[in-house]
Order: sequence, then structure tokens, then C-alpha cells
Amino acid sequence: MTPTTRPDPEQTRAQTRRRQILDAAAICFAREGFHGTSIAALSKAAGMSPGHIYHFFENKEAIIEALVERKLEQSLEMVSQFENAEDVFQALIDRVDIGLNEKTDLDNAALELEILAEAARNPRVAASVRAADRIKHERLMGLLRSVRRARGLTHDSDAAAVTEILMALFDGLAARAINHPDLDREALIPLIRIALRTFIEGQ
Amino acid sequence: MTPTTRPDPEQTRAQTRRRQILDAAAICFAREGFHGTSIAALSKAAGMSPGHIYHFFENKEAIIEALVERKLEQSLEMVSQFENAEDVFQALIDRVDIGLNEKTDLDNAALELEILAEAARNPRVAASVRAADRIKHERLMGLLRSVRRARGLTHDSDAAAVTEILMALFDGLAARAINHPDLDREALIPLIRIALRTFIEGQ
Repeated sequence: MTPTTRPDPEQTRAQTRRRQILDAAAICFAREGFHGTSIAALSKAAGMSPGHIYHFFENKEAIIEALVERKLEQSLEMVSQFENAEDVFQALIDRVDIGLNEKTDLDNAALELEILAEAARNPRVAASVRAADRIKHERLMGLLRSVRRARGLTHDSDAAAVTEILMALFDGLAARAINHPDLDREALIPLIRIALRTFIEGQ
Repeated sequence: MTPTTRPDPEQTRAQTRRRQILDAAAICFAREGFHGTSIAALSKAAGMSPGHIYHFFENKEAIIEALVERKLEQSLEMVSQFENAEDVFQALIDRVDIGLNEKTDLDNAALELEILAEAARNPRVAASVRAADRIKHERLMGLLRSVRRARGLTHDSDAAAVTEILMALFDGLAARAINHPDLDREALIPLIRIALRTFIEGQ
């Protein structure tokens, strides 16, 4: 092992601390709201001093931005996994439950809605949310196109809108989880599969 | 006209004042957030004294509850209009743009997401949102059943889940409006029609 490939303990520690702050912020923002969470409360939840938090993030907006980026990375990682599947269409159909369970997880849904509500009135959060959304939409549209190609489907003019409507369906599941926490998740799986099949295969 | 049917000017004035407060609150909550809106700011926006506001609503939660009830009444009124259409299925297909435009209106989307985010952490708001949701789900499921009956379709075991998934799709459009304000609304109309047709006709 050369020195350049050896993990830098300082850097590893910094990454761990950063992750701790984001994990604590995700819970605090979901449960108390962005404005209801003070840096003091966050510092208590993260188990470190306010000074440490300010060392990593200039303010709460910067923490939301980092949460949005982290969520984007997780979404793109999921897209990559689908892209690498042997039969991408079948993988999407088979693993509908991943998206459903994530979107209807109450803490996740609460955080997602809180960030969107904040984006609706805070230009900095809006810019971050929209930049991440553009990248995610682009990658999901690429996935849709490769699924269609693999199935010999040549229509493409609806690709942007189909991506949009499928994103709406999954985003809407988060809203349903708050409106109706006891919703029958199992019963939704075959319907989401029908939606995927219908929109991928198209007219 | 008998005295009992003549509108009571006192009552009319009270209704007007109440509506003024709710209209102002809808804008304030969407643009500044529920916690970012003080009764002082709301009183300025509504053009009346804080005392007047407290005469109608004990606190901000009571205002959110009234907004949720008003929204439910509007939704049920829309369901009634569809129920009274000569061809309910065709009316739903034809008027998809109503739901789309309402859900993707930025102020409306911001208010809806703000109320849901608050419901995720505030038990009183959650109870109000969930009670309204149950009524709306029930009425929409009734509409689905009557559309299916009118088309001679007899399957019904998926009715609750189909209602849920269509509500998710429309709720998700509000999230899309915040994530992607320039979304191509026109391009979504045929896709929402496909979703309605697919889910109503079912397997």
C-alpha cells in the first residue's frame, strides 16, 4: 500500500462526524421541522458541540443542501444498480417494494415533505432541490430509454413526461404515508407494477 | 321571503371575515411557513386586528384545521360534480387538467406540502388531515365504483388500493411542481388519462 491510497485517519474522522451531523439533522428536521430545530438541539442530538457543527456547515441551509446531495447520491446509486441488472425491466418490476417502502417510511416522508415545503419559500433550498431533481430526472430518463431499447421499443417522444409522471407517483407515496399511515402497502405493489409496465411500454 | 330564509347580515359578515382570515392564512402559510407566520403578520395580511382573528380561531392550529376542512369541502364538491355528469368516466378523462392545474399551482402546492409537513410532527394537525383524507378516500372510492358499474366492470377487490394510487399520483404532482416548476403540464395530460383508464378498467 502506498501512502496515497492509505485512508487518512483525519479525513475518515471528518467524514464520520459529517455523517453523524447529517443523520441527526435528518431526524430533527423530520420531527421538529427545519425552523423548529436549533443548532443547540442539533448539537445535542448529534452528540457534539455547536462549534463542531459550524466547523462542517456554515448554517442550517448548508445542512439541508448536504442532505439533498446525500439523498441524490443514494438515488443515483439505486439507478446504477438497476442499470447493471441483467434484465433491467424485470429488476424494476421485481424491486418496486424498495421505492414503495422508502417513500412510505414515515421519517423519510416527513423529511422529504419538510425539505419541499422549505424549498417552496427559501430560494437557496429551492436551488439545491431543483438542481438535484434535474440530475435525478435525467438519470431516470436514461434508465427508461435503456429499458425501452432492451425491449425493442422505439418510441421516445414521451420519455421526459413518463419520467415525470413516475416520479410524481413515487413522490406522492410519501404524501400518502402522512395522510394515511395505515395504507395497505402490499396492495399497492401490483398497481405500481401496472403503472411501470404501462408507462414503459407506452402506446 | 320569510324571516327565516332572509340572510342574517351578522352571520354573512362573520362568514366573510372568516373567509378573509383563511385566504390570508393560506398565502402566509404557503410563503412563510406555519411557524414563520405570526398572528401579528396574519392580522396585517388579513386586514383586521389580532383580536378579530382570535374571535374566530383560538390559535394557528385551528386555522390549519379550518383550511383542511375548506379544502375537503372543495374536493367533495368536485366529486359531486363528477358524480352528476352524464358520462362520469368521460368527464374524468376530459377534466384531468383541473386536478393537474390545481395540484401544480405553486401556492397551492406549497400550502399542501406545508400542511403535510406540519401533520408529520403535530398530532392535532395530523388528526385533522387524516380525518379529511379518510372522507375524501371514501368518496373517491365511491366515484370509482360508480364509474366501473356504469361501464359494466364488476371487479372491486382493488378499489381501495386503486383510489390510493390515484390519490398518490395527484398528490405527487404537487411535489413535482416544487421540484420542477417548469414541468411540461400539457405533456402530462395524456399520461394521467392513461393512468386513469388503466386503473379504472383494471385487470
